[in-house]
Order: sequence, then C-alpha cells, then structure tokens
Amino acid sequence: MNSSITPKLNILKTETSRVKEVDFDNLVFGSTFTDHMFECDFKDGEWQNPTIRPYGNLSISPGAKVFHYGQAVFEGMKAYKDDDGRVWLFRPEANFERINKSAKRLAIPEFPRDIFFEALTTLVRMDKEWIQPGLGNSLYIRPFVMATQVGVSASPSDEYKFMILAAPAQAYYTGDVKVVIADHYSRAANGGVGAAKAAGNYGAQFYPTNLAREKGFHQIIWTDDSEHKYLEEAGTMNVFFRVNDTLITAPVSDRILDGVTRKSVIDIAKHNNIDVEVRPVLVSEIVEAAKDGSLKEIFGAGTAAVISPVSAIGHKENVYELTKPEDSYSARFKKDLMSIQHNITEDPFGWRFEVK
Amino acid sequence: MNSSITPKLNILKTETSRVKEVDFDNLVFGSTFTDHMFECDFKDGEWQNPTIRPYGNLSISPGAKVFHYGQAVFEGMKAYKDDDGRVWLFRPEANFERINKSAKRLAIPEFPRDIFFEALTTLVRMDKEWIQPGLGNSLYIRPFVMATQVGVSASPSDEYKFMILAAPAQAYYTGDVKVVIADHYSRAANGGVGAAKAAGNYGAQFYPTNLAREKGFHQIIWTDDSEHKYLEEAGTMNVFFRVNDTLITAPVSDRILDGVTRKSVIDIAKHNNIDVEVRPVLVSEIVEAAKDGSLKEIFGAGTAAVISPVSAIGHKENVYELTKPEDSYSARFKKDLMSIQHNITEDPFGWRFEVK
Ligand SMILES: Cc1ncc(COP(=O)(O)O)c(C=O)c1O
Ligand SMILES: Cc1ncc(COP(=O)(O)O)c(C=O)c1O
Repeated sequence: MNSSITPKLNILKTETSRVKEVDFDNLVFGSTFTDHMFECDFKDGEWQNPTIRPYGNLSISPGAKVFHYGQAVFEGMKAYKDDDGRVWLFRPEANFERINKSAKRLAIPEFPRDIFFEALTTLVRMDKEWIQPGLGNSLYIRPFVMATQVGVSASPSDEYKFMILAAPAQAYYTGDVKVVIADHYSRAANGGVGAAKAAGNYGAQFYPTNLAREKGFHQIIWTDDSEHKYLEEAGTMNVFFRVNDTLITAPVSDRILDGVTRKSVIDIAKHNNIDVEVRPVLVSEIVEAAKDGSLKEIFGAGTAAVISPVSAIGHKENVYELTKPEDSYSARFKKDLMSIQHNITEDPFGWRFEVK
Repeated sequence: MNSSITPKLNILKTETSRVKEVDFDNLVFGSTFTDHMFECDFKDGEWQNPTIRPYGNLSISPGAKVFHYGQAVFEGMKAYKDDDGRVWLFRPEANFERINKSAKRLAIPEFPRDIFFEALTTLVRMDKEWIQPGLGNSLYIRPFVMATQVGVSASPSDEYKFMILAAPAQAYYTGDVKVVIADHYSRAANGGVGAAKAAGNYGAQFYPTNLAREKGFHQIIWTDDSEHKYLEEAGTMNVFFRVNDTLITAPVSDRILDGVTRKSVIDIAKHNNIDVEVRPVLVSEIVEAAKDGSLKEIFGAGTAAVISPVSAIGHKENVYELTKPEDSYSARFKKDLMSIQHNITEDPFGWRFEVK
C-alpha cells in the first residue's frame, strides 16, 4: 500500500439532514447514527474507492465471511464540541494504531493512515451539527473492518470493507456500577485475541454477563482463564484499584486491551504525583483490601463510559460495598480527562486534536 | 417458543435455476450456493416469518451487532445422493442440538426444532438437483444465526436472523496434510467459547494459521492455552492419534468442539473392536511415540474434510513424518463413514436420515 497513490475521497452528501428530528436528551447509546458514513473496500490487494455517503443499509451476501467467521475488528473514539463550537478528537492516533494492530491479529490488511485521517476528519466536519456542546456530550465514532468475501470455508477473506459510523452520545453509564469477579467463565486465552478489539471477544461475554446481571451485577471483572487468580479488565473498560493512596492496574498483555483511557489515566495520575503500580493484581489482595478497609476505590476506564466508579464488588458468595471517599481519585481523573477532552483546560499531554 | 404456534414456512421459488451453469468438477469449497436459501427473523421475542427464497444479498444496517460484536454461531452438515437418487442427511439431530448449544453460549435465543427440520428438508428437496451422486460429492449445508439489531453498544441483540445456505461440495482437502503443534498462540480459553461454533473462534485462528503456512504446515493442532501441554483439536476438525493399535483422542471440554464426525469415528472404532482411549493427550507422549515409531497415524475428523490423514507433524524445531500403515485406521474409518453417509452399506447406528 505504501507505494500506491492515495485514492481520492468521494463524497456523496445527503439531501435532507435528519439532525432536527433527534431528541438529544434521550439518546440510547450507539443507536442513532449521523447523516453520513464512510466506506472503503479492499479488493485485488488494495483499499479502493473511499467514499462518504448517506448513512444507510449495505447490500451484502449472506455468504460473506464476517457472518460465519467473525473476521472483524473495530474501534471506539469520540469527538467533543467546546463552547466556542470548535470540535476536538482525543488521541485519534492511538485508535488508528490500535485498529491496525487488531487487524493484523485477525489477518486483516492494515488500513492506510492518510485515508483514515482524511475520512475521519471529513466525516466529523460534515456531521458537526450532530455534536452537542456540554460536558458529557460527544459524538461516538465507530471505525470497523469486516471480511466481505463470499465463502463458507474457514480461511482469511481476500475482500474487506472498512467503515466509519458516528452516533451522538450522552454519558454511557448511569448510576452505580456493581461488578463481580469472574471465577468460572473467561474473556481471553493466552495467545488468543484478547488484546485485539476483535468482534468475537464481545459476543462471547454476553452470556456470562447476563448470568451476572441475574445476580444483580452490571459488569464482570475478568480474570486469567487458568486459575482466576489475577484481575484483568471489564468488558469494555480497563480497571483500576486504589488501595490506600496507591493506584494499581494490570499491565496490558495478549489477554488485555491496551486502552486509551487507561494509559491517559496513568499519565494524569503520575502528573498529579499519585503512586501508580502497573503490575499483576491478585484477586486475593483486592479481597483482603476490601475486608480490611484499605480498598478505597475501584473504577473502570474506557472511551464509552469515560470513568465509571464501582460501588460494590462481588467475589464468590460475598459482596463488598465501596463508599466513595471525599478525595475520590475517580472523580478527579474524570474531571481532568473531560476537561482536556472538551477543551476546558490546558492539555499538557498534547492529546487534543482539532477538527478544523 | 414452545407454547406458540409454529409459523407456516413461506416459499418463494426462483424463476430460473442456475444449476446448469455450475461446473461440478471444479468447485471451490463453500463458494457456489444453490438456488434457494432459508431465512427466519427473531423479533419481539419470537422467531417469525420463516421463508425459503432465491439465494441473494441481504439488506442490512452497518450498525447491526453481528458486524461489531461477533454475536453469531453456525453449523456445518452435509446431504448425500445415492445411486438411486435418494437424498440423505447424516445425524442432523446432532447439528440441530449443537447450534442451539452454541446459541445459548452466545446469548442467542434457541431456534425451534420443527421450523429447523421443515426448513432444512424443504430446502434440500427444492435444491436436490444440486447434489451430485458419487463418493465424496455432497451438498454442504450451512445453518447460521446472527445478531441483526442495530446498535454499537456491547450488549446482546434483541433481533436475530437464522439462515440456511447450501453449497455443492467435492472433497475438502486434497493431498497431504502437515500439521504443527501450537506452542504460542491458542484457540480457546477455559470458560470461553471454544466448545461453541461461534463465528469469532474462526477468525481468531487465521493469523496463527497463516504463520504456520509460511513454515510449510496446513493446519495447527491447538493445545491448552496455559501450558501447551495437551493436544486438543484442529481448526475445523477433531484429532485422533493411533499409537500402536490404540486410538486416542481428547475428551470434549469447554475448549473443544463436540464434533459429530469425532463421535461417529469413536463408535465405528468400537464397533470394529479397536481400543479407544478418550483422555487428555499429552504433547510429550505423542512426540515420544513419533520418535520411537509407535505413533502410526494421526488424522483429523470433521464434516467438511471427513477424515484427513496427517503426513507430518511439527513440534518446536522438529518435524516428524508419518508413513501410512497398510492397515490404515483412517482409510478404514473414512470408507466406513462414507459408505454409511452415501447409503452404500447398512447403517447399524441409525445415523442416516432420508430427505423424502
Ligand atoms: C475490552 C476492552 N477493554 C478496555 C477498553 C477501553 O479502551 P479505551 O479506553 O481505548 O476505550 C475497551 C473499549 O474501548 C474494551 O473493549
Ligand atoms: C473447531 C471444530 N472442531 C471440530 C469440528 C468437526 O466437527 P464436525 O465433525 O461436527 O463437523 C469442527 C467443524 O465442524 C470445528 O469447527
């Protein structure tokens, strides 16, 4: 791809925008899409015909490999509008790199940087009216790639479709989040695809998560599949533990997604002179800390939910409640992170990226 | 579903069959589909509108959950035509039960038995001309279910599409199969979805399989993800080892698919008074047996490939060649199995199911 000439982005504008029909105060996350979407096909060994066109259905063969073999990866990122109407992305380079890392693990050809950024910024600019200003509001952006070759034989596709959808979003989680520590089901294998945002990783979690819901929990904190001894991450969030004043989180691995929010939280914490330990986290030490009161906070970190404080954690037959401390780390990180994202404060890290 | 009335199967016949255009001697596995396909939607808590209609594209939202979360499962089964033109399925009940087992693990609602069998047999009957008689020829049948609800938030879909496609097939593998024992990548986690025919399990294997191909192997024999100590199964086949005159295969588990061919081979072997051991198979014992010459055969067993003899097995830096013995088990099982499938011999097990 590097040697080929970047194809020109085709643009087909909608005749009538749907933005006026949207009730922005009652959005269901990820289910209302903006006027346009981006599409680009991989055929004959090349990414071809990059096009922004009105959001609408695809015509696709039921024999397309994505339906049968889950050869698909995705990303999740957000755009924010500040009070002056300027639009910002947050660390888009990280998402670009990650989708190609995920693609590689799923034997999907990498997508070219220049088309990605041109498509992303053009789409956001065209659908700018869909972004509401105000803290917590955003445009959730979903780049994804799927195998489109027709064939029900289990081998890599030689045709793919790369797409970007965008959906206006309010805050993802509302209310208290109760989590339970996995001790039977697992999310990822050693040497598996856990570190990739592979489509199949998510469908695989729905059933165990339903079982957890029936017991009153919202999310599962996954553990290693061998012994359920180490705490890893939640379904769409990395997880942080505060024991006394130290912030602890698991290192990324081939089982754990390298979250953009996670690494941003680590940097913000260090910037605030908070002790951060990135190391394997034992279930037993967190349960002990819950019992002796040194466990002050647990929170999830991810693009959709931003920072999601945990109010109770279940392990085997026990549930440990957590009371938010006055000097809450999670509240502080959330404020710092959102202030940067929404262009309210300085950005000492250089994370903001303006869509002009 | 049990209490509801079975909806009537709608049938829309094609106006012009494509069967005359097909070169049955040069089929690429799983890429030419018959004239018709079956479709049934799950909406408002019910399977609705079961329909057989001409094979063709679907119109589907790019926001459908199957593209993003891999919430999809499938089956693979075959129909055979005997020399009298009668058409037979092989143990279809096992595939029906397994797709619902897979569905459950992926939080997909189960599909009703009566619609499944009515759709399956009607479709096979309608597209009967597509089945070639002759050993090795068959109609490969692909039932599958996918999440169709529109929404890019990671939670179970509340709408699904169940489909059946059919594709005429010749033998799946040609030539020697060289396999390599996994010692870095893995297929399935303990407590994961390995035992389900979940779409995501297959896409996840493509990259490691490509790496194996670069080293001259066709398939990987997967091992446990914790220590790579136990031999489990191949990408689309269960695996059997013959050490001296004993047939050994791993027990099914939550990491290993309960293959229909596997259990049929076990029954055929027992019927032939061959010693069968279903127990964890150590990598080390098979490598030892390869070295001391007691390893006589390895073969894969699966619907697509039927029985696939292995000619060489790689482990770390070594490759062990296998010479097919005169009294080959794999040849015998293949013959016995195919003779039953094609209605050439008696069926002492009651596996054949005629499509009248
Ligand atoms: C499995 C998993 N872990 C963690 C995260 C958080 O990553 P990020 O902060 O980049 O959104 C996500 C979602 O995005 C995820 O899917
Ligand atoms: C992972 C896996 N193992 C084993 C098999 C063999 O199962 P069966 O004999 O039912 O086709 C298959 C394919 O069908 C498979 O996908």
